[in-house]
Amino acid sequence: MSYTDWVHDELEALSESLGFRYTPLDELENRLARLRKAMAKKGLESLLVFQKMACYYLSGTTQDGLLFVPLEGKPLLMVRREVERARVESALTQVVPIQSIRNLPSLIQAYCGRFPETMGLELDVLPAKDYFRYQDLFPGVRFLDGSPVIWDTRKIKSPFEIDLMKVAGEIGKNVYLRGREILKEGMTEIEFGGLLEAAAKTYGHEGLLRVRSINYEAYTWHVLSGPSGGIVSQSDSPMGGLGLSPAFPVGASRRAMRAHEPILVDFGTCYHGYQADQTRMFAIGGMEKKFIDAYNACRDIHDTVLEESRPGADCEEIFHRTVELAERLGYKDSYLGPPGLQTRFIGHGIGLELSEFPFLAQGHAYPLEEGMTFAVEPKIVFPGEGAVGLENTIAITKDGYEILTPLAQDIFQV
Amino acid sequence: MSYTDWVHDELEALSESLGFRYTPLDELENRLARLRKAMAKKGLESLLVFQKMACYYLSGTTQDGLLFVPLEGKPLLMVRREVERARVESALTQVVPIQSIRNLPSLIQAYCGRFPETMGLELDVLPAKDYFRYQDLFPGVRFLDGSPVIWDTRKIKSPFEIDLMKVAGEIGKNVYLRGREILKEGMTEIEFGGLLEAAAKTYGHEGLLRVRSINYEAYTWHVLSGPSGGIVSQSDSPMGGLGLSPAFPVGASRRAMRAHEPILVDFGTCYHGYQADQTRMFAIGGMEKKFIDAYNACRDIHDTVLEESRPGADCEEIFHRTVELAERLGYKDSYLGPPGLQTRFIGHGIGLELSEFPFLAQGHAYPLEEGMTFAVEPKIVFPGEGAVGLENTIAITKDGYEILTPLAQDIFQV
Repeated sequence: MSYTDWVHDELEALSESLGFRYTPLDELENRLARLRKAMAKKGLESLLVFQKMACYYLSGTTQDGLLFVPLEGKPLLMVRREVERARVESALTQVVPIQSIRNLPSLIQAYCGRFPETMGLELDVLPAKDYFRYQDLFPGVRFLDGSPVIWDTRKIKSPFEIDLMKVAGEIGKNVYLRGREILKEGMTEIEFGGLLEAAAKTYGHEGLLRVRSINYEAYTWHVLSGPSGGIVSQSDSPMGGLGLSPAFPVGASRRAMRAHEPILVDFGTCYHGYQADQTRMFAIGGMEKKFIDAYNACRDIHDTVLEESRPGADCEEIFHRTVELAERLGYKDSYLGPPGLQTRFIGHGIGLELSEFPFLAQGHAYPLEEGMTFAVEPKIVFPGEGAVGLENTIAITKDGYEILTPLAQDIFQV
Repeated sequence: MSYTDWVHDELEALSESLGFRYTPLDELENRLARLRKAMAKKGLESLLVFQKMACYYLSGTTQDGLLFVPLEGKPLLMVRREVERARVESALTQVVPIQSIRNLPSLIQAYCGRFPETMGLELDVLPAKDYFRYQDLFPGVRFLDGSPVIWDTRKIKSPFEIDLMKVAGEIGKNVYLRGREILKEGMTEIEFGGLLEAAAKTYGHEGLLRVRSINYEAYTWHVLSGPSGGIVSQSDSPMGGLGLSPAFPVGASRRAMRAHEPILVDFGTCYHGYQADQTRMFAIGGMEKKFIDAYNACRDIHDTVLEESRPGADCEEIFHRTVELAERLGYKDSYLGPPGLQTRFIGHGIGLELSEFPFLAQGHAYPLEEGMTFAVEPKIVFPGEGAVGLENTIAITKDGYEILTPLAQDIFQV
């Protein structure tokens, strides 16, 4: 059988029998309709999307390619390598091969009859070299930054998307429950992290967490015991951990975990590209009172954020309220990091990427809206000693919120 | 104890006791000297490096920051978040904090006395938006593409680097030996992949594989059994596998592995940022003759590449020789992928990233040099049935090659 015949005759049935859920056409059409509203507002006659997760959001496939979205008419998906598989995966009807970026102008001209006057490009991630290339390929076309319309559309999740995030949350729940069974004194942080990751994969987790950035890396093995929790590193996070080497100085280390110290596990899970983020505390044979008190403060702060979370609430105000509460509770110098290195957010939007709108953060004075999803993560750090924290992912509903990570919040004592 | 005191008093001892190896100053100086030779050739008076692994290569730290390399004088490392930790990790002496990119011009002017006339930027990965920002911040400075001088320097590995790659190769060897113990009929591809990854982490593997690209993702769980091996996907690889969902349509799937089918495991490992890549075959209770024959052809092709590998040999010629050999052996239509989707490389440079120079590939007519390291990976694909392949990572020596992945090449029968 030829490869193409096999893909068309068997791939869809095989993949669905193994749990693939393809994005339905009406879901894509709803997304595209909202995207186009945002495009029209920004004066964008067209949008050329290349970043993998943005293409997935708008086409349903992550096959290597480019998606051209005219303000009117059907989007055109141009696939570099595996066009037949893209045709199986995407509900879009206009899916064509593209051999080289050189063919892009002729494909678009043939499709639209002319070049669009304005074209949005993802300038926050598009390499400068590729931008210059597009300038050569599309003389006379005015390029604008198309990223904001993509973020703007993606910040409101559909029920289809929230369902996938709930599955991710359920996978995460099972990971923590499994963690309670396997954690042992003397086990290293990285061994524990690796076993949690292996368990997560059998529960349906896809392995990679994603961030829209060339330099920022996400990973699941953020297991920080005792002093590891007090170490800051490259990421904009209250605690980075020691890590495994100067090439990977974040997350779990080779440190053997001991009894009575705080063990913070921040484990994100991913299902069909949609992520849920959560943090829980573990302790072997109980934890010192200092850390239990701080953890209870994190629970108070977490609950306060949830109480405030409803359409119309201001993201920046919620953040500042938590800073005030942390101070009142006696954690001014340890809330969200050590002095001088404290982060300035209590929540980050999450979906296909770990860092999306909204941000419950300083400088983010805008209201929450129904369909927004974000992780709430109060954390308290004691340099040289340890860190504690709690994290859940929630969705904003019509008049409040729904927790997507439904796991007990007590410290897991083993 | 304050955070800063703790970092300076304890972090180095703690991290070294847990296996960290910091890059010595003389190693950095050798790299910088070679980089500057390349800069001078290209007319670059300075280079501003931001990409994480390029910064690590030249500074020894991956803390979030920017490295400014003037053609003469010491490089200046500017760190955004954790400058104290960067000072512990980097052997460079000029390490300063930078609060905002707005401060970059004044820092560089203060350091050099003036703006450089030309500045190299990493245009292959620098987002267009950041490029425009630099244009505003450095009026009058001429920007050139600085990436080629970085690749050019990195393509020759030092003994220090090759030692780290050997450790990665040893970790990979132990992963495959462990795989022989845990593989069982009925286990899913992803369960096997997850357990191999967990084992790898306990042996010292750092979890993330890296590629210099916003869209290309690397992962270890490339476990393809039977028909999964015959599926192509987004990556420029002979076989992509089914994967777990349209959001991650590569690598291991939820398919249960059966007796007598080919199980291809392509598992890269990483130690202190340095990677080794290898592929081996597994089979439960023996494998069909068709696949054994194809695997023996891969061994022949692999051995031919190694025989040719020495300083002066032409990369493109080696590739073409393997295509001829594959045809002679009867694999014209299955060598390196199904017809129409065959890849055009038999080897890829490897080091801090999975795709570096040299490429033993069509269009790469340049000679091998002492100190180059690359993976050799002949693979044969039968759509709908399965794939076989073999992969090792080697270093070019003064008059030949050295294998960095010293593991038996027989099929692992369980």
